[in-house]
Amino acid sequence: MAAEIAEQPAVVADLVRRGAEIAAAVDGVRPPALRGFVLVARGSSDHAALYGRYLLEHAAGVPVALAAPSLHTRYGVVPDLDGCLAVGVSQSGRTPEVAATMEVLRAGGARTVAICNDVTSPLAEVSEVVVPLGAGEERAVPATKTFTAQIAAFALVAQALARPGWAPLRWSPALDALAAVVADDTDARAAAADLVDAHRFVQVGRSFLYPVAVEAGLKISETTGLMATGYSPHDLLHGPIAVANPRVHALCFSSPGPVADDVAAAAAALAGRGARIVAIAERPGDVAVADVVVGVPAGAGELLAPLVYIVRAQQLALHLALGRGVDPDRPFGLTKVTQTV
Amino acid sequence: MAAEIAEQPAVVADLVRRGAEIAAAVDGVRPPALRGFVLVARGSSDHAALYGRYLLEHAAGVPVALAAPSLHTRYGVVPDLDGCLAVGVSQSGRTPEVAATMEVLRAGGARTVAICNDVTSPLAEVSEVVVPLGAGEERAVPATKTFTAQIAAFALVAQALARPGWAPLRWSPALDALAAVVADDTDARAAAADLVDAHRFVQVGRSFLYPVAVEAGLKISETTGLMATGYSPHDLLHGPIAVANPRVHALCFSSPGPVADDVAAAAAALAGRGARIVAIAERPGDVAVADVVVGVPAGAGELLAPLVYIVRAQQLALHLALGRGVDPDRPFGLTKVTQTV
Repeated sequence: MAAEIAEQPAVVADLVRRGAEIAAAVDGVRPPALRGFVLVARGSSDHAALYGRYLLEHAAGVPVALAAPSLHTRYGVVPDLDGCLAVGVSQSGRTPEVAATMEVLRAGGARTVAICNDVTSPLAEVSEVVVPLGAGEERAVPATKTFTAQIAAFALVAQALARPGWAPLRWSPALDALAAVVADDTDARAAAADLVDAHRFVQVGRSFLYPVAVEAGLKISETTGLMATGYSPHDLLHGPIAVANPRVHALCFSSPGPVADDVAAAAAALAGRGARIVAIAERPGDVAVADVVVGVPAGAGELLAPLVYIVRAQQLALHLALGRGVDPDRPFGLTKVTQTV
Repeated sequence: MAAEIAEQPAVVADLVRRGAEIAAAVDGVRPPALRGFVLVARGSSDHAALYGRYLLEHAAGVPVALAAPSLHTRYGVVPDLDGCLAVGVSQSGRTPEVAATMEVLRAGGARTVAICNDVTSPLAEVSEVVVPLGAGEERAVPATKTFTAQIAAFALVAQALARPGWAPLRWSPALDALAAVVADDTDARAAAADLVDAHRFVQVGRSFLYPVAVEAGLKISETTGLMATGYSPHDLLHGPIAVANPRVHALCFSSPGPVADDVAAAAAALAGRGARIVAIAERPGDVAVADVVVGVPAGAGELLAPLVYIVRAQQLALHLALGRGVDPDRPFGLTKVTQTV
């Protein structure tokens, strides 16, 4: 896991270098009048798809739905998807239900793009265009480099399909920040030492960092066996805040921008119930109630911030595992490819 | 909370009696070529919307997206929603961001339907058509009768907009099953006594019962302060299964149909890691590994099963609260209307 975390700047930079080629391929399946997206994935890939759900609507200005695979694989629903683009995401491309769902969406009229590592996989085969992640083999069960590669792939797809006038993504400072966050894990190590006896976590993030809050929970659950549930600030306040108490640690992901105040308000509400607050932030002052601060290199910009912030969660999950005597590469008998059909 | 649980059969029956009138109103805003839905809600209402997400796609055969409010309220995204129907759901209709989001979706070209209790609320005012829940004032913080009313409202909307050939919903046996589940809470009381010292929960349900798994978690978290996270079986197997151990109780919601085997497989995986399994099922044998069985009256049919199954979760949450010395009506300082903007 540590080795794969370290590979991320190179993997993402390589994908960005192939940006023009990817844009051309995606452009080839752009429906004449694009009316929406449907995204299909499971696990970490589904959290990357959640980022895609935000970024594609932001960029292309059409609604984005996350598929409900069972409707297609169990109930035989073939929706009318004329004018829609379906994007299937899977590290291996070998989760049977993801490929099966894509096949149904294509039958319903959707154009199809696969984001995966293996261009010969079933998912790649049922899709018209493949965006190869080029992340190389990922051996640790907790996905790291494929997740950041999927985030970058969604950003490249969004860029290719954006409405006129959408400000182009600034890749260069994001790649610099990604290199910087990988190069120095001091803060994450220190926080992990502080949290090693934690009982349970909640994570908070909004908009582009909401997928990071959810994916951070999966990393921590995978490497510690602890419950760790991600919420948007507003969802948290609509009931689940009841779980906050002094035995709960709250990881609050905050980047500068229009949702920083929402994250700060949720952190304050959690702190008010006694939860211990860990800020993962470029500007630690944005989470004023923080008990522990994990700094994040600035400069990626809000839309690409997930590339950088998720690395802090990966580092935390890794060092929590090591501190708790768990093998982070193969924790709790989990397997790498989950064969749900 | 107990009184409001008891009102549910009457509230839902009343809504169903108004079905033709609701269908006519919804038909008045049906886009000439319906191309999709966008659903807007928070908290329990968002879990009802998750049911709508499944049922509307099943019935109407077009994609259904859950809105990402922050894109509209924080980032100013106005998507192109020509041909789409937006449905906003809120008990009070007074959560500012739900009304604000609906306003943006309408500006983007969506036709608009509100599902709420108060026909003079801001949400009702920004919407072209209102489906009044008629649930009466709900005073307990944990939503019960408004949730089942919202489920019924989504079912009536789906029925009104279904593709030709979609089998009509069979309301009469569903209303009978709802009356029966409310009338006898023996199983839920017994299970609550068994679970009163539980530390944390996961819930499992698929397709139409996935929203029940998620909403059950919110009820239990609200009335006990314990973490209780809902998963679909396949999502659970893609990583979060790592949290299963003998200190975790798993509530498995299973109704007869094509996804029963998926729930059984997840239950078996959880049991294999030592979790204690509580089956909430019409046919207890469908969850062979169950340690505790909470029976559910049969007959509602899969599509309306959530109306009946959620009552078991409400009863469990109520009796867990009472057993733990928590006031179920106003637990943990929560408030009834959450003013997220």
